[in-house]
Amino acid sequence: MQRIQLTEELSFSRIVHGMWRLNDWKYTPEQTVELIEHCLEQGITTFDHADIYGSYTCEKIFGDALSLKPELREQMELVSKCGIVLESENRPAHKSHHYNTSKEHILLSVDNSLRDLQTDYLDTLLIHRPDPMMNPEEVAEAFSALKKAGKVRTFGVSNFKSHQFSMLESYLDEPLVTNQVEVSAAQLENVQDGTLDHALEKRIAPMAWSPLAGGAIFSDEKSVRLKDTLTQVAEELGTEDLSEVLYAWILRHPSQIMPIAGSGKKERINAAVRALDYHLTLDQWFAILHASMGHDVP
Amino acid sequence: MQRIQLTEELSFSRIVHGMWRLNDWKYTPEQTVELIEHCLEQGITTFDHADIYGSYTCEKIFGDALSLKPELREQMELVSKCGIVLESENRPAHKSHHYNTSKEHILLSVDNSLRDLQTDYLDTLLIHRPDPMMNPEEVAEAFSALKKAGKVRTFGVSNFKSHQFSMLESYLDEPLVTNQVEVSAAQLENVQDGTLDHALEKRIAPMAWSPLAGGAIFSDEKSVRLKDTLTQVAEELGTEDLSEVLYAWILRHPSQIMPIAGSGKKERINAAVRALDYHLTLDQWFAILHASMGHDVP
Amino acid sequence: MQRIQLTEELSFSRIVHGMWRLNDWKYTPEQTVELIEHCLEQGITTFDHADIYGSYTCEKIFGDALSLKPELREQMELVSKCGIVLESENRPAHKSHHYNTSKEHILLSVDNSLRDLQTDYLDTLLIHRPDPMMNPEEVAEAFSALKKAGKVRTFGVSNFKSHQFSMLESYLDEPLVTNQVEVSAAQLENVQDGTLDHALEKRIAPMAWSPLAGGAIFSDEKSVRLKDTLTQVAEELGTEDLSEVLYAWILRHPSQIMPIAGSGKKERINAAVRALDYHLTLDQWFAILHASMGHDVP
Repeated sequence: MQRIQLTEELSFSRIVHGMWRLNDWKYTPEQTVELIEHCLEQGITTFDHADIYGSYTCEKIFGDALSLKPELREQMELVSKCGIVLESENRPAHKSHHYNTSKEHILLSVDNSLRDLQTDYLDTLLIHRPDPMMNPEEVAEAFSALKKAGKVRTFGVSNFKSHQFSMLESYLDEPLVTNQVEVSAAQLENVQDGTLDHALEKRIAPMAWSPLAGGAIFSDEKSVRLKDTLTQVAEELGTEDLSEVLYAWILRHPSQIMPIAGSGKKERINAAVRALDYHLTLDQWFAILHASMGHDVP
Repeated sequence: MQRIQLTEELSFSRIVHGMWRLNDWKYTPEQTVELIEHCLEQGITTFDHADIYGSYTCEKIFGDALSLKPELREQMELVSKCGIVLESENRPAHKSHHYNTSKEHILLSVDNSLRDLQTDYLDTLLIHRPDPMMNPEEVAEAFSALKKAGKVRTFGVSNFKSHQFSMLESYLDEPLVTNQVEVSAAQLENVQDGTLDHALEKRIAPMAWSPLAGGAIFSDEKSVRLKDTLTQVAEELGTEDLSEVLYAWILRHPSQIMPIAGSGKKERINAAVRALDYHLTLDQWFAILHASMGHDVP
Repeated sequence: MQRIQLTEELSFSRIVHGMWRLNDWKYTPEQTVELIEHCLEQGITTFDHADIYGSYTCEKIFGDALSLKPELREQMELVSKCGIVLESENRPAHKSHHYNTSKEHILLSVDNSLRDLQTDYLDTLLIHRPDPMMNPEEVAEAFSALKKAGKVRTFGVSNFKSHQFSMLESYLDEPLVTNQVEVSAAQLENVQDGTLDHALEKRIAPMAWSPLAGGAIFSDEKSVRLKDTLTQVAEELGTEDLSEVLYAWILRHPSQIMPIAGSGKKERINAAVRALDYHLTLDQWFAILHASMGHDVP
């Protein structure tokens, strides 16, 4: 599988697997190990987490599985995120839903993630959302401390617009290595508002969450248009699986987006891997764009 | 009182007093002196003016008071603005409302402000509004001339978006020292559109006008939500004065915003000073944000 | 006529003539030569083309005329554009309307333009539209190859927003020399969204297409307001030709916009030239702005 170089020392697999619904799958630790090993066999070595996934439970489910085969840790890259505070029975001290990017909270979150994931380090830590109360000096201090302690190797952000990215980076010792944003043929905001252009200018490859638009894109007028076009392109590609086309659409973008497959089913994960073999024509790529926008480019 | 360092030589008081309604208060020069001295006793040493305030009258009212105790000048920082042209009986040559940031107009405005304020220099001059006709080379020439003549010590802008700020600054000999923008719990535009992020990236502290949203925020649905939340936070802080909470909300932002209190009543000015003693929790800060937005952050 | 220096070696005439409707005029090659010579006599030496104009026919019409008097080539600057793919009977291989800024397509487009224009080089090549699929490394390679081959002297863009401009430029060996955008008193988008500010910051002069808003601005409420104000300003200037006022409004902007006159009638071209003699007052400039916006500046 193609790999994306984030720094001299760190690369991600082009397809990333996301664990935000791991708790929904009701897997035993052995089944989770099997899913992880399936990913690794496909070349998917990068696993995307966040402290809050599954109301603060998914990292522990993953870690419990990993503890059965700890030798797998060195074959993978672990990404986690922090900065969102959710009310949860697993965090009784939390009184409301808000953001917290204080040094104290970042350090505490990483310690929790390391404990739950049963690992000594994260390959990459992302600030989960742009926080209007973010003090960039505190974030810089937290990142430095985590790096120095060997707890986190690289740092990035998620859902940041370009001005938020450059502001934070201006306080940091090292460049941010990625920005994980929502991108799909059905959700063009970051394609159109300069976020992907900024990634190209910064020479960083973005990660894409919800690359299939949550699987729920086929009800309204826009979705009907989109489904028709996806179906036509799928036919041209010789497949019946529209998710392959959705992945291929993202993979074709010059910013080298790494889509996050978030399924617990091996076959659905394989669809993302198969999409790597397609190379959409510009006719096909723009037909999908036009179907999503409801009109042609000018 | 906390002070904000704008340059090595210049600092402002964290709370600024604004004179845009000075003419409404119908104070005698003696009463104006009393108000100024009250501010200074509270540690409020920075006074915000503009040529146009009170239809070109407020600077003169302030200057007439200052002439009674000229020794106060060295205890304060005077900020003024130029660039807006208003039709006014006090400016019979003005034929229409527009902007003028020509070198000639800037130099003339500053001379008028110095004469009216009865002072030899401004600590800071701001371009009042982003002017679509601004010729940055002319502004740069005007700033250089004013600096050289000892008439203005530092320069900033007001109501500028980040691209307007960086464009103008790229023509100047010295960095802009502040951006005075509208910020309040009821008016989030500059919180959300990158203006405050840009201030953080430039390491400048913004000034906030209308920090209480003009005192008239409590009629519509949004305002009812906001008032309810402000009232709850006020209770938690042990006060009944919602304006203290509004000031505290602004003061908590990491960009070190300097709110401009614009009241002629000592008690209302004191509310801003008292707000410095609060430190809102993130629960409280986001509860107010959510009430203003009408929904939670994502 | 005033000239705008784009690089040390290249300048454009302040008024540019645009050939996008050349096919509509049904001119013989001799008549086209006459129009070109009329422009040159007025000092208009810069001619704006694109591969797609007239469904891929205008460049050939121009080139056929130029072949009658090839000595004119050295008296003019030729600008062309590429990157849009149109379905056309003149391009039977094109299957759909989309963008293509691949190296292969750029090189092919330039070869077509050189052949059709009957010239050895373009003074400036513009990427016609911001392409969401643009691979900036490929564009950089194409530009380098074209420069090295002597086929194109300088490079620019068209319809780019500031983030798209700076992203592409970050990959290029040489700065982009211009951005051709839509600007008119009736179409303020690029005046208001930072595009012209960015041009000022980059020290590049923009070109303006549709400076007269397509001549069709006078039907709705906004247009009635605008026509009334243009008529009043025209009276103040001593002319009855509103297009002169529209050109003068653009020419007054500090970013030194080069408006593209796109008429086949000498008298209409002359109107643009005459506009160079006006210097609108700020009262006049803002009156037109206010009429277009429907409200005053703040």
